[in-house]
Amino acid sequence: MTYFVYIAIERKEAILDPQGKAIEHALGSLGFREIENTRVGKLIRLSVDAANPDEARSIAEQASGKLLANPIMESFSVIQVKTEPGLR
Amino acid sequence: MTYFVYIAIERKEAILDPQGKAIEHALGSLGFREIENTRVGKLIRLSVDAANPDEARSIAEQASGKLLANPIMESFSVIQVKTEPGLR
Repeated sequence: MTYFVYIAIERKEAILDPQGKAIEHALGSLGFREIENTRVGKLIRLSVDAANPDEARSIAEQASGKLLANPIMESFSVIQVKTEPGLR
Repeated sequence: MTYFVYIAIERKEAILDPQGKAIEHALGSLGFREIENTRVGKLIRLSVDAANPDEARSIAEQASGKLLANPIMESFSVIQVKTEPGLR
């Protein structure tokens, strides 16, 4: 069965995020004064062939640890495992 | 009150994703044969000063439509509104 596994990869809070800062300034110029801070991360969707959702999650976590995330600067978390694409 | 709003930005299915393809091949080389398809999107976290979660969500949706997402190639969705950072 194919599972769609969504992985969120975020920079750790202590790491500067220039892309987030750029968006923050642009939103300020557009008049969004309520938006105080912006950070940009990656959202990776894997299609995993696995027997059950737990196995799909475990494969996605291994892939994140080995290739997708940089453990020094980033943290990752599996945010969704579903049989159909799309976040909720 | 400050709300942390997470926005997922994904390319539409019909749009090619070269970064996703590159990851797919790299995962194949590492032996992850169960992973069939990979797509990469953006995950944006906004800190929004709002009276309630619905207002925070609405501001984030306006910001996404005006600046963050390219409506031709991408679709966006607010995936979480919380008073603390971190996806679940």
